[in-house]
Order: sequence, then C-alpha cells, then structure tokens
Amino acid sequence: MLFDDKRLAQQIRFITEIDRLKNVYRQSILMDSSRRENSAEHSWHLAMMALILSEYADSDQLDLLRVIKMVVIHDLVEIDAGDTFAYDDEGRKDQKEREEKAAERIFGLLPEDQRNEIYDIWHEFEEQDTAEARFARALDRLQPLLHNYFTRGESWQKNKVRASQVYERNQPIEEGSEVLWQFATKLIRDAVERNYLSP
Amino acid sequence: MLFDDKRLAQQIRFITEIDRLKNVYRQSILMDSSRRENSAEHSWHLAMMALILSEYADSDQLDLLRVIKMVVIHDLVEIDAGDTFAYDDEGRKDQKEREEKAAERIFGLLPEDQRNEIYDIWHEFEEQDTAEARFARALDRLQPLLHNYFTRGESWQKNKVRASQVYERNQPIEEGSEVLWQFATKLIRDAVERNYLSP
Repeated sequence: MLFDDKRLAQQIRFITEIDRLKNVYRQSILMDSSRRENSAEHSWHLAMMALILSEYADSDQLDLLRVIKMVVIHDLVEIDAGDTFAYDDEGRKDQKEREEKAAERIFGLLPEDQRNEIYDIWHEFEEQDTAEARFARALDRLQPLLHNYFTRGESWQKNKVRASQVYERNQPIEEGSEVLWQFATKLIRDAVERNYLSP
Repeated sequence: MLFDDKRLAQQIRFITEIDRLKNVYRQSILMDSSRRENSAEHSWHLAMMALILSEYADSDQLDLLRVIKMVVIHDLVEIDAGDTFAYDDEGRKDQKEREEKAAERIFGLLPEDQRNEIYDIWHEFEEQDTAEARFARALDRLQPLLHNYFTRGESWQKNKVRASQVYERNQPIEEGSEVLWQFATKLIRDAVERNYLSP
C-alpha cells in the first residue's frame, strides 16, 4: 500500500489537488503578450514581489513569512470558485459564498491542524485587519496593474475598463503601502497619457 | 517621469523581467495531463509543499522563511539558461556555467543589497550545505516525482527514463527528509509495479 500514514496521505492528496490552480486563467496577460496568466504563477510572482518590496510596507514590523503564506494561499479557492474578474460586478455578487464553500472543501483535504492554519491565513487575507493582509493585498493589486501597463493596456482595452474604475480598484494599495500607492497612481496617469487606458 | 526613485525603478525592472519564468517550460506534465508545467508555477507549488511538509525536515530548527525564499528563487536563472532536463547528461555539462552567468545578469538588475541577498540564497540552495537547502532540494525532487506518478509516468515514458535513473536522481531527498525519502522509494517501486516506469 502506498500510504500507511494517514496524515501524509492527506497532505499528498492536498498537494496533488492544488495542481489544478495552474489551469485557472486570469484576465491578466503575460508581459510578452503571449497568453493569459494563471493563478498559480500569479501567486509565485506575488511571493517574489513580497521579497523585493517589503521595505515599502507601512508597518515596520511586518511578518514577511506571514505575507508570503498569504499570497501563495490566497487564490486556492479559485480551483472551485474560478477567477472572478475585477470588473465583473455580477460575478462578484456571490463570490464570497462560492469562495467560502471552496475553502471548506479544498482546505478540508488537509489534516485538521493544517486545515485550520491555512483557513486562518486565508481568512486573515480576506478580512484585511492586519498589516500583513493589507500589504499582501497591495501586491495583489499592483501586480496586474504592472501587467496591464507593460502590455500597453491589453486587458483594459479588451474589457473596456476606464481610468476611474482602475483608480477605485487599486485604492487598497494605499492601505498597505503609501510608496507603492504613489507609484501606482503615477502608473495609471501615465497609462492614460499614453492611451493605454481610457480617461 | 514614471520613476524618480532609482531604487524602486530597479526593483520594478526586476519584477517585470522575471515574468519570463512563466514561459520556461519543464519536462513535467500537469497532473491533468493538459500541458507541460512552467518553472514559475512549479516554484509556487514548491512553496506550498514547504508550508505543508516542513514537519518532515530532518532538522527540527528549520527556518521555513529561508526554505520558501529558496524555492521561489531557485529557478530564476532558467530565464536565461533554460530548464535543463534532469536526465540530459549533455546539457548538464555546462549547466553550472550558464546558470552563474544568468544569475549575474538577472539578480544584477536589483539594487546592490538585494542583488547580494538573492544571490546568497540561490547560492545556498546550489551548495546544499544547510538543512534549509537540503529540504528545499528534497521538495524540488519530490514534486516532479508526484507529477510523473499521477500522470502514470507520462514524462518518464516520453523520455525513456528507467527506474535506476529515477532512484539516483531522487537520492538527494534522503539528505533533506528521511520520511519523504521513504515515501519516494515506495512511490517509485509502485510505479514500476504498475508499469508507469521501466525497471
């Protein structure tokens, strides 16, 4: 028998299940415009951004490990719930409910202690009550902004998104990092000037 | 001007450059057999495995943040050097040289302090002198083993790989985790029994 250890069997089951995140595609387009981005590689990119940009978090006692845990976990629920596009007001109506159900099933594959730990981290990200959660969200918003800017607004144009929507969507960056918010607003202004984004 | 801050400009340049890791494809095939895996999503998967499996590291003082930094960074050099297939003896001859050059260019995009930090982490992984590096490598070997097993040996068969090669390739798992090595050997034995892998 492959598994005589129930705990390890549950952990490996979870690890194989989450492979499916690699086939959840987002609206973001890779910087070389070759294809849409999936949520697994997006999560990796956020972990790298956390490493490189943590000095800009507004909190000077940021728990970097906690931030990285959040960004690698935060999209797992999309395996069941799918990626809800940022500007899809209809899809966002029942997003919370769909994602709660997904968290229950997917995290529930793990041994109980780890199920609780992963759920708590995911929940912390969703609730936005800690500096770590706010910084993680700032990165999660900044990353697609970079992708849009460096593909000359490809996804914005395809989805007919306007500057006012982009400002509103990215406002949470300000809660996590004043420096990154200053940068983001410059990026958006510049995108409008270059006609990547409609005013 | 978009960047009046040279440090932030360098960091954003690095963050956009590493987007290319999403288009470096490995020999591993996703568990649903839909396509080959890329090195960015592979790195994310390793970070998740580090979170879930750290209890099996042989060291009981494992620095988990260090392990995760290693696994998200370890393949960045492939942006220039490409992915060298595990069983490609020819390609592995100059792999080290190609990867050193890649590290110099890619990490060199960062401000000096961060260039040094990232280089040190990458180098630690390559040198295998710490418990963190050995555990990170164990995960990096176990993950494609899981992909092969759960796709019924698709990549093994395509590349005519035999069991003795798989044992040798995965031996480093033993240096990082006795428990995971026991599991890996069972997986390989079972793969041979099920004809996923030639004896």
